[in-house]
Amino acid sequence: MAGVPLQSLVNGQQADHISIHDRGFQYGDGCFETIRVLANNPILWQQHLSRLKRACRILSLEVDFDLLNKELSLLLEINQSPDVILKIIITRGEGGRGYAPDSISSCTHVLQLSDYQVPDVRKAAKVILCQHGLSANTMLAGIKHLNRLDQVLASKEVPDDFDEGLCLDQQGNIVEGCKSNLMLCIDDEFITPDLSSCGVEGVMLKQLIKSYAVKGYTVARKKINLKQLQMADELFLCNSVFGVWPIAEIYNADFELYWKSDRVEGQYTCAAIDWANEIFRANN
Amino acid sequence: MAGVPLQSLVNGQQADHISIHDRGFQYGDGCFETIRVLANNPILWQQHLSRLKRACRILSLEVDFDLLNKELSLLLEINQSPDVILKIIITRGEGGRGYAPDSISSCTHVLQLSDYQVPDVRKAAKVILCQHGLSANTMLAGIKHLNRLDQVLASKEVPDDFDEGLCLDQQGNIVEGCKSNLMLCIDDEFITPDLSSCGVEGVMLKQLIKSYAVKGYTVARKKINLKQLQMADELFLCNSVFGVWPIAEIYNADFELYWKSDRVEGQYTCAAIDWANEIFRANN
Repeated sequence: MAGVPLQSLVNGQQADHISIHDRGFQYGDGCFETIRVLANNPILWQQHLSRLKRACRILSLEVDFDLLNKELSLLLEINQSPDVILKIIITRGEGGRGYAPDSISSCTHVLQLSDYQVPDVRKAAKVILCQHGLSANTMLAGIKHLNRLDQVLASKEVPDDFDEGLCLDQQGNIVEGCKSNLMLCIDDEFITPDLSSCGVEGVMLKQLIKSYAVKGYTVARKKINLKQLQMADELFLCNSVFGVWPIAEIYNADFELYWKSDRVEGQYTCAAIDWANEIFRANN
Repeated sequence: MAGVPLQSLVNGQQADHISIHDRGFQYGDGCFETIRVLANNPILWQQHLSRLKRACRILSLEVDFDLLNKELSLLLEINQSPDVILKIIITRGEGGRGYAPDSISSCTHVLQLSDYQVPDVRKAAKVILCQHGLSANTMLAGIKHLNRLDQVLASKEVPDDFDEGLCLDQQGNIVEGCKSNLMLCIDDEFITPDLSSCGVEGVMLKQLIKSYAVKGYTVARKKINLKQLQMADELFLCNSVFGVWPIAEIYNADFELYWKSDRVEGQYTCAAIDWANEIFRANN
């Protein structure tokens, strides 16, 4: 998500370097969050923090969250930009014998602010089906860990005039976008792809599922194959940076049109756009 | 593999820091090799280089290998230790928009020398079955990329008085050790687990398969479940740092004895030990 780097703190100190012995660099041994910050308010902060804590629990990273909070306040004090992206990276720090970590490790905190051109989501997205499939692992699924080669290789397939790539699992089911989650509406049923073996549990996705529930709609989590994707009436992407982004067209890897919306902003997508805008407005 | 850090070069300069914006740190966007260096000779160098080149090709990393070679010579010139571990890390460098890399990226080369207590492989290994399963991805299988959370989490399960952990795939088949490959001998048949969806194609494994072939033995690559593992007559681990390490005992995660050798150094294991020793001796 990060664009032009602005300020950054490494363990509370203004710095932009890290030891080559850090396990984040050596093994991708850590996790992260990417958060939109409007008028110095990190949007959906509690939800991001909750997901970060879950990732740290799964990876057994012992983080001093009070200290992290203080470092974040320090960074936001020196921030001058009204609309900026915050990335928080937590690693297991240095030490250990090869892959095996020390039993007591001192985590590294990296906090980065970056300029980021939020895409204009009023223009519906042009999307491509990526050929690089996501790695399957029920023990790592859902969390935002630092092993992101899949997203890098899938993103490499997205041409400049496309807005996002859609990623499949090893069986050819659709999972998510490279940097977003996917919501489908088929015959007035809401579905989001099953994330039990790969994919990231999006903070915005979770928020939207709650909003639909308030209106009496359930969002089913299912394995979705490409045939089912083609049957969708409405499709949209979501994440906590851009909110909700309707999909206009999906192309396959040979650039053949695979799916085209006949109601780009259908009623259910419009509702989600309103909710996402409400979340961003509430903090501005 | 790395132990106490000695010298290191970052892009040819003596340094031990890297930018937080490096894609190796941000996403694990890169690959590596771990090589034993005896009397300043990197053992099985051509084989390591060949695997490194393959990983770079798969990840589309454009590396100047002549430059890398020069940097390696520079590092070995300042090395004083007769037996040391060399780790070469290649990342896609900085830049790009989020996950999407720049079309022209300048790779980062990190070369590290570390002290390493090579285990005494004359004492057969005590091994545990790890519960953390390896991620499956046919597109990344075999190469030594920087996404190593699986190995970290599996290694965390290996108690101090154990020598290695064995890793399963998502279906419960045995794949490899946390830091080594596995060879089985069942009824005079040689088998090494199939690595087409996860695991690392070991340089020493490949070398041993060649040596068996010279003697007229074929090593089959098969999916091996836990029942088949229990039927093994001889089992050994191999990698390019310690060579060949016979397995004495395997325990499950509840520390119950799962497999025990009645011929720790059977004839086929002994042959492999000889070949590995020959490789190390030839460079000393």
